[in-house]
This record gives sequence, structure tokens and C-alpha cells, in this order.
Amino acid sequence: MPAEFDLIRTLAAAARPDPRAPLGIGDDAAVLNLTGRPVVCCDLIAEGTHFPPDTPPKLVGRKALAVNLSDCAAMAATPVAAFVGLLVDRRRGYRYAEAVMRGLTELAEQFHVTLAGGDTATHDGPTSLCVTVVGTCDREVRRSGARPGDALLVTGRLGGSFPSGRHLTFTPRVAEAQALAAAAELHAMIDLSDGLLADCGRLCDASGLSAILDAAAAPLADGAENVKAALTDGEDFELLFAVSESDAARLLDAPPVACGLTRIGTVAAGAGVTVRGADGEPLRFPTAGYEHAFAADPATD
Amino acid sequence: MPAEFDLIRTLAAAARPDPRAPLGIGDDAAVLNLTGRPVVCCDLIAEGTHFPPDTPPKLVGRKALAVNLSDCAAMAATPVAAFVGLLVDRRRGYRYAEAVMRGLTELAEQFHVTLAGGDTATHDGPTSLCVTVVGTCDREVRRSGARPGDALLVTGRLGGSFPSGRHLTFTPRVAEAQALAAAAELHAMIDLSDGLLADCGRLCDASGLSAILDAAAAPLADGAENVKAALTDGEDFELLFAVSESDAARLLDAPPVACGLTRIGTVAAGAGVTVRGADGEPLRFPTAGYEHAFAADPATD
Repeated sequence: MPAEFDLIRTLAAAARPDPRAPLGIGDDAAVLNLTGRPVVCCDLIAEGTHFPPDTPPKLVGRKALAVNLSDCAAMAATPVAAFVGLLVDRRRGYRYAEAVMRGLTELAEQFHVTLAGGDTATHDGPTSLCVTVVGTCDREVRRSGARPGDALLVTGRLGGSFPSGRHLTFTPRVAEAQALAAAAELHAMIDLSDGLLADCGRLCDASGLSAILDAAAAPLADGAENVKAALTDGEDFELLFAVSESDAARLLDAPPVACGLTRIGTVAAGAGVTVRGADGEPLRFPTAGYEHAFAADPATD
Repeated sequence: MPAEFDLIRTLAAAARPDPRAPLGIGDDAAVLNLTGRPVVCCDLIAEGTHFPPDTPPKLVGRKALAVNLSDCAAMAATPVAAFVGLLVDRRRGYRYAEAVMRGLTELAEQFHVTLAGGDTATHDGPTSLCVTVVGTCDREVRRSGARPGDALLVTGRLGGSFPSGRHLTFTPRVAEAQALAAAAELHAMIDLSDGLLADCGRLCDASGLSAILDAAAAPLADGAENVKAALTDGEDFELLFAVSESDAARLLDAPPVACGLTRIGTVAAGAGVTVRGADGEPLRFPTAGYEHAFAADPATD
């Protein structure tokens, strides 16, 4: 019966020599050759929470890497190397684990990312993957740099990502972020993982500012039921960024990206995010993104 | 009820400003300032597999980082920044998750490692942590550099780590590795996570050589039942390394580490690991370390 080290051997054998991670897979740690400042992100996905149990395993592995590439994009960074912690439900077969890793490595190749290390184990519980991506940047774009009067733009279209299955197949906006950073001075940026309203709130909080969003401007994705879906559904993995009015006009006039760009609102002084309806009146939404809750506290520690 | 972002806020607020990760926690990714080549390792631990369900949560968090520090040590690298993917059983309370992270951050402070990012989620399943540590090194010590005739030395004492609970409280040999690297030319090194026999086999495979181990020399830990335990129990997290005969003599004469050093064997041409008993005859051991098995393959992909 194949086991942990068979999977590692298979991955190590499939990996091409890469000067960015010259040791390959299989030592106690990877040594990286980076040009530029290291940027590191780390996101996990778990069966039953971030993907349904019947998700094709290749799409499971793809998503685990894609959400991290999206985080790299949000910094306008270039992803270089991925590290994968794969914990597999023992009842799944070896071929399941192998397919998960194949989905991950296919996306890695597409984005010129080298699989440089990680860990695998089996257990009695849901499958989960925790991926860390190390990248580089010359000048990172933070969440905290928005300025009053900045225009807020989003890439692509929003809403209905989970029910439509787009959360498994979306394109991380790595190239788009670099094209935007080359074309304009991006003051602040975030990727939309928990819903536009929630993530816009985070960008505003980090910048010490507020935002006014225009509900009618929200670019609805196929499968997004209504404006509420576009504003509050999670897992869009599009980019929200703040630029000056003049940069916004230039970007919208001649978009450097093919995925679409939409002006969704404006940064202002103060705190919080206000959504305005077509009549100019504020709209209220009951939920603002997804948050993982803990159980009421038993005495555990 | 406290939730995911409360935990992240608590961690972010507790973190001291650190010039090695100037953004702190809470942007889409961390930006690191490193001096030296980046070294990256990634190890996961899961409840029921790597720690019993009744393990105090602080020791769970401690172990998740400690196993990674041990991997850094095996490269003779200096750990700098940790990234934590924490997946918590939903039935555990917020205080459980907080205690896990407290155990991790306490060990991080002790080793001057900055918690620079990560991800948390809750789910219906066992708690698990996947930690990635980024460190630096001037000249890494690989598994592959052993030479025929090298002496094989181990730090500390071996066996019975899991039943004795030492796997939760061991000291990662980071300082010891640096002291050894400063005192001698370390040709090859590995940390003992799957048992001396199995891990020695890996060092030999990577070096394209074989080893002869002396069973009577194995330094038995408190709680190690016999020589077999010292040779095949996992989770010792001591260092096994190969040095020239003259360096070995020097190190054993005046050890630069307080944890103890023992000559356990010799590197030779060929392949595989042979264990010799007191009578010089080869000994056989039925198991050589722990490996995670997958179920027989259902048609899943």
C-alpha cells in the first residue's frame, strides 16, 4: 500500500530542477534564491468548510494554492515557491492525495511557482491543506495606504462564487495586479475573500478612513443573484484597490487588464463603509462576510 | 461569541513591532527583512495523530512550532518568522484556540522568532496546525554531504519520546546546531523525527552511502525501554550529523553543547543502514520509523 513517503518521492521525482529552490524537495528545509524582498502568505482550506466533500481532488489542490496566489496578488508581489501541508482523511485513497497534489502543481506551473517543500499526513478527519507561498516584491501594496478622495476600483465581477463553483476555478489576479501596479500608483489593495463589504471595511480600517460604495455600480458575476450577493458573498478573489481620481480615470479609460475594471466607490475621512442605493440613500446589509466562529467556551485550558 | 478575527486581533495586538516583519500581522501577506539566504520549512501536526486529544492546548501550539524549529536546526539555520495555519475543532472554545497560540508564541519569543502571519478557521473535525518557519543561513547543512569514513554523532538521548510526553516539551536544537557548525565542518545533518534508523537511512540515501550503527552506543533517554526504542521510536527531535573522524574526536573531547554528544556509528560506501550488536553481529528491527498510510484506493479521481 503506498504511503506518505511514496507521495513525497513522486512529487520530488516530478519536480524539475529549479535554481530558485536548488535543493529540490526532501531535505529538512528548502533554501531559496530570491531577487527582491520576501513576501510570505499562508492560507488553509478544509473539506466541509472551504470545499464540499465531493469536490474533485484536483480542484481541491488547485484552490489551496489559488487562494494564496490571490494573497500575493493583493500585495502586487510575484509568487516564487509554495510549501504544502496536506492532511488527508485516512479513508481517501492514495490516488486522491496524488490528484490533490497534481491539481496544485498544475496551477503552480501555470504561475511559474516551484513546489519547494511541505509535509503530508493522514488522519481520521476531514482533508485539509495549508499552503504557504513565498514571493518577492520591489514595493508591496499594503491595505493601509488609501487616501481621502481616492477612487475604489475592483477587478472582474462579484457574487455567487461558492454556489457557482467559481471558488474552485477562479484565476488569481497575479498578472493583473502587476499590470495595474505598472500602470498606476496603487495606494492600497486587498483581495476579496470574505465579501466586498467586509474586505472594503478592512482596507478602510487599515487606512484609518471610510468608504462610500455605489450599490448600482457593483459588477454582478454570472450566478450572483442580486446586488447583495455581489457586496456580501465571499470567495470572489478579485482585487479591490484605491488610486487617485486621475489614475482611476486613466485606468478606466484604457484598462491594462482583460478581466474588467469597475469603479465601485470613493474613500473618505471617518470610519466604516456606507453603501448608497440608486436613490442616494444608505442601504443596510444584515451580514458582512463570513467569519469562523468558535463554540461557547468550555473550561479547556 | 468571539470568532476568527478576534483571535487575529488579539495576536496582532500582542505582537511587538519587529523590523524583521515590519507590516505586523493583518495584511494579505507579510514582507520580511532577512539577512542571509532564506531557509523555509513546513510541518503539520494533527490531534489524534501527533498529539492526544487531552494534550494541554499550550503544549499543542508549542509542539507545532518546535518541530519546525527542529527542521531549521537540522539545516544549521537561524529561524526568523513563523506562519501558522490553525484549524480548530468547532467544539473547542475560543480560549482553547487562544491557549494554543499562546503556547506557540511563548516558544517563538524564547527563540526570537516573530509570528508574522497565517490563517485560522474552525471546522467539524480534529484540531490541526500547519506551521511554516522562514529562517536564514550563511551555509546550510544538507542531508546529502556525508563522506565515506565520516563519524555519525547524535545530540541528547533517544527513545520513548511519545509515551513519556517529551515530544511536547523537547528543546529544538537550534543553538546546538549553530554551536556545532561553528566548532566543526558538518558534512550532513538531519533531525530525528521518525526514528534514528529511518532518519539515518534518509541521510545515507541522500548522500548515496551506507551506515553502520553500534547498538550498544545508543544513548537511551529516560522512558526509553530498550535499544530498540532508542533506534526506532520517532519524535526524538535530536540531531544526527556526519563529521570527519578528527572533527568527531575534537567534538567529543570538548563538546560545544550541553545536551550531550554520542558517537553512534560510521558512514561507509554502499547503501542501507546496518545495526551491530555488542557481539558485532547485525541486528534486525521489524519497523523503521513511522509512516502515514493511505487507505486502499477507492475510485476517487
